[in-house]
Amino acid sequence: MYYIGIDVGGTNIKAGLVDEEGTVLCRAQTPTLAQRPGEEIGADIGRLAKAVAEDSGVPHSEIHSVGIGMPGACSDETGCVLYTANINFSRFPLREAVQKEIRLPVHLGNDANCAALGEYYMLPEKTENLVFITLGTGVGGGLIIGGKLYTGFNGIAGEVGHIMLRHGGEACGCGRRGCWEAYASVTALIRQTRAFAEAHPESAVAKSCGENFEHLSGKTAFALARQGDTDAAKIVETWIGYVADGIVDMINIFQPRLLLIGGAISREGDMLLQPLRQIVEAEMYKSRVPQTEIRIAALGNDAGLIGAAFLGKQS
Amino acid sequence: MYYIGIDVGGTNIKAGLVDEEGTVLCRAQTPTLAQRPGEEIGADIGRLAKAVAEDSGVPHSEIHSVGIGMPGACSDETGCVLYTANINFSRFPLREAVQKEIRLPVHLGNDANCAALGEYYMLPEKTENLVFITLGTGVGGGLIIGGKLYTGFNGIAGEVGHIMLRHGGEACGCGRRGCWEAYASVTALIRQTRAFAEAHPESAVAKSCGENFEHLSGKTAFALARQGDTDAAKIVETWIGYVADGIVDMINIFQPRLLLIGGAISREGDMLLQPLRQIVEAEMYKSRVPQTEIRIAALGNDAGLIGAAFLGKQS
Repeated sequence: MYYIGIDVGGTNIKAGLVDEEGTVLCRAQTPTLAQRPGEEIGADIGRLAKAVAEDSGVPHSEIHSVGIGMPGACSDETGCVLYTANINFSRFPLREAVQKEIRLPVHLGNDANCAALGEYYMLPEKTENLVFITLGTGVGGGLIIGGKLYTGFNGIAGEVGHIMLRHGGEACGCGRRGCWEAYASVTALIRQTRAFAEAHPESAVAKSCGENFEHLSGKTAFALARQGDTDAAKIVETWIGYVADGIVDMINIFQPRLLLIGGAISREGDMLLQPLRQIVEAEMYKSRVPQTEIRIAALGNDAGLIGAAFLGKQS
Repeated sequence: MYYIGIDVGGTNIKAGLVDEEGTVLCRAQTPTLAQRPGEEIGADIGRLAKAVAEDSGVPHSEIHSVGIGMPGACSDETGCVLYTANINFSRFPLREAVQKEIRLPVHLGNDANCAALGEYYMLPEKTENLVFITLGTGVGGGLIIGGKLYTGFNGIAGEVGHIMLRHGGEACGCGRRGCWEAYASVTALIRQTRAFAEAHPESAVAKSCGENFEHLSGKTAFALARQGDTDAAKIVETWIGYVADGIVDMINIFQPRLLLIGGAISREGDMLLQPLRQIVEAEMYKSRVPQTEIRIAALGNDAGLIGAAFLGKQS
């Protein structure tokens, strides 16, 4: 069978037809135009699904389902989007809107959850349990337990970015203080880099950011640290410490066989992974049992699309 | 069928024969004498199991299995105790030792996990997911996911007491700093009460503790607060805040239908529960979806015994 995956972002909606092995055979995309009425976005999602189905030449009878990954919370039970951060989709019956355009089963999931599912199905080895963390604008996650995506009784489980690491610490977008996300997201790394640059305007870090911080990104400190700048190395080290704090929590709670780290920053590879593993090893709950393996996620940008497609495999 | 449950504590080993409804029909117990060789303790566990089986008059063919709850980590796969805090049982083949005394399948589990399982099977309603937290010497927990006890790939998942709430905070027995357990256990409440008493020797709290703190317990502050003492009320409020911090984390991660709070301190009932619910409601990840219900666990001291007995139902 074949599966259609849709990855809905704040900027673009991406669609792909995926085979059983997770190969994306055919792609299409359209701008989200996030402030449009939900009906219009829903119709575009449906039309994109139809387009990849038709362009692929795969017979309709061999397409199993459409899966949609959303930046927000969905109920796959009711087929409704519950809320999204930046798209006009609160309490919206998305399944119904999509099925006006294409007659196939439609499944909905959170985007980080879909990425977790994509990584899970594409693993080279077999495992029952997996924790997936994505470091980006926020800190998101997806939990695979017993081979299934775990979403809690209300569909919104896995908000791992909103565990508290520092009582009374930085304000988080969720309303709480001291959340993991407020320290370990790429947004937080950028803020931390900028704060250093502002305090040390003559530093290489500051110069690297540009006069109006126009060159500042999550890569700034990593790139300079690679060149041997000790200030940048310290910024990176501190940030990796924040990432590690939450990962130790995840391991103490879940003891998964595998913990995968995704998001664009994970391309920093061993420069992120090696110090992270050292801290986790020192801080995790000790016992003489096999330990979680921490790896960089494998699929990059396609994880969400492939995982969305495979939502249909879960039901 | 009937099930034998064994609850191994640092002081006593308790055994009971349990029917399908979770009624304990027959009981026995013996001192643990924790420093003895593991072989002797294992043999005593086996003999206790045999004793309740024989005393109950239930035919051997109607007894399904023996389940043993341990304060530590076990592998039900290998039948070995991996480690325990206070009992001489590291890397000990407990199943083998017990089966020398009684010919039945033997299952092993962590004591907090067993308590979670006991509470789960005895719920008046049906639910797939449950988080159980026990507040005592430490903070323990058990996770029921999809109707099954979740123990991770290595058997030691659910160490929820060792999530970090305050980076760089109080030292925890696990080696980390700022763990939930270091703030929200009854041990921590006692330490917090004592610190107040030492700083305010003329206070009602100090008087209530006794000259050498011989009357100090987890109940001290709760009892005085009930009588209207504002210092004690403040101690209780602060401690409940610590409990709430970790519970918000649990909900943000798991979104279980039910979160149960056990341990002797849970007998404080609404005085614990009402402020706790208020904080959780204010702090949890917001969305317009159904919310986790927080309740006091129902079974009290028997949860571990009944849950251990029902380990056999899980396999």
